[in-house]
Amino acid sequence: MRVDPRRGASPPFRNLPPGPAAPAKPALEPRSTASYSGVRVGSVALVGAGPGDPGLITVRGLELLRRADVVVYDRLVDRRLLAEAPRARRIFAGKASSAHALPQEQINALLVRHARRGRRVVRLKGGDPFVFGRGGEEAEALARARIPFEVVPGVTSAIAAPAYAGIPLTHRGVASSFAVVTGHECASESQGRVDWARLATAVDTLVVLMGLERLPQIARELVAHGRAAATPVALVRWGSTDWQETVVGTLADIAERARRARLEPPVVTVIGDVVALRERLAWFDEQALPIGAVR
Amino acid sequence: MRVDPRRGASPPFRNLPPGPAAPAKPALEPRSTASYSGVRVGSVALVGAGPGDPGLITVRGLELLRRADVVVYDRLVDRRLLAEAPRARRIFAGKASSAHALPQEQINALLVRHARRGRRVVRLKGGDPFVFGRGGEEAEALARARIPFEVVPGVTSAIAAPAYAGIPLTHRGVASSFAVVTGHECASESQGRVDWARLATAVDTLVVLMGLERLPQIARELVAHGRAAATPVALVRWGSTDWQETVVGTLADIAERARRARLEPPVVTVIGDVVALRERLAWFDEQALPIGAVR
Repeated sequence: MRVDPRRGASPPFRNLPPGPAAPAKPALEPRSTASYSGVRVGSVALVGAGPGDPGLITVRGLELLRRADVVVYDRLVDRRLLAEAPRARRIFAGKASSAHALPQEQINALLVRHARRGRRVVRLKGGDPFVFGRGGEEAEALARARIPFEVVPGVTSAIAAPAYAGIPLTHRGVASSFAVVTGHECASESQGRVDWARLATAVDTLVVLMGLERLPQIARELVAHGRAAATPVALVRWGSTDWQETVVGTLADIAERARRARLEPPVVTVIGDVVALRERLAWFDEQALPIGAVR
Repeated sequence: MRVDPRRGASPPFRNLPPGPAAPAKPALEPRSTASYSGVRVGSVALVGAGPGDPGLITVRGLELLRRADVVVYDRLVDRRLLAEAPRARRIFAGKASSAHALPQEQINALLVRHARRGRRVVRLKGGDPFVFGRGGEEAEALARARIPFEVVPGVTSAIAAPAYAGIPLTHRGVASSFAVVTGHECASESQGRVDWARLATAVDTLVVLMGLERLPQIARELVAHGRAAATPVALVRWGSTDWQETVVGTLADIAERARRARLEPPVVTVIGDVVALRERLAWFDEQALPIGAVR
């Protein structure tokens, strides 16, 4: 099946706000606002808020946020982003392994309900909506309810937290593949389980999200299935924010180091030889050092 | 090794431009501009331009672009982003498998030279600088030359192109892991080769960048090593732009379908059961259809 390009060869300057010398600003109405059979419907944008640093939201995401009537946001979303939608109704959806979270079905229903009332709804999610964000489930609920929606990808913490710690996920001669997996698995799920045995040696760099609790088992499994115990590992907590901290070790000792450092979630774990690049590239951690002490 | 958080508990409102009700704007000088031993040095920001849609650049990235004295940009960067830096010296660095590209060493030297002249340099790279962007090599060159630099992660096309085609890389009950690999491998590299045999069944979703030329071999290798021939595959060309087009098939027939569709690079390939979600979630492709024909 081929989908033909149905737009002109010269797309409108759609998503950028005017800068010093930007072209004239075209209509910037939400792409997906529409009316079905004469009934006014709103729209929902599933927006990635980025990894933590509020400057890492996309231009399009910020624009939609500022125009939103309703913002449904997650626990890890920076409050400074919410301040960008001061007139919007702001609804906390919780999530993360907290007991005070709305069940996913309720979040889905909330998005549908507000859109049906004709509102511009922004579903603001940490990182990227389609990477472990259950954004796919929300999109499915919107599609079922025939609510127009769009997806605004975000900078995922799986890549950005390592980057802020000075760790590229790929590097010539060191790593030409990476995998991203969740370390926080629901035991009742029959499909989509992480296969640590196969993963151990399938990719050069392995990024584990939400895996701090199971870190001892994960490290043991990877070594048991052929990954060198000396493989460097970095744990990046609150990556890209001013609270960022990083604990470095090897598969053999990282669990013990994390315990001694009393590290707590949210943590992004990076496993692979690229972690060693941090010694030269840790640009963000070094910022607070006095000039001259750098490198 | 533990790096202590060295910043206060309440970080400055650093990276966001003022919105309707944003807090007062603080000093927004580049974080990394500094002076070493009295010699004025500029700085380099390695900025991810995002996957194609210029609205998917980050707020921080756009801000640095607008203040840049020099912009060194890649082939796939949207010209509308360059228009945001009209006064900057704009230098084309080429790349992608073109013969008209600057060698990486020359790009590195260019960044160092302009920064040494006290300029604010933006190295504008497609997608994310640290995902197959050789940003790590540029960062190493800057670190060696003691040039202050920062990394501004971008939305990677590995995630965003599928998202615009209606494909989440993870989905509850379908996929809880994904891998990103390059299909465009330099035969002379001894390390970091992609191990298709192990990859075939190690993750739920596989994303191959720059793999169109080798697609027939890649599909064959994956099937030979245990991935079902019926596994759905999507090829997304020019993902997130108005020229986006998508070809869908299975591992068994995708190479033939790509050939018949005369698909050309740049293409992001997605392999896995999540591709089937596109039938319900293809929000971007459907925009151009008449209202009422949607879904």
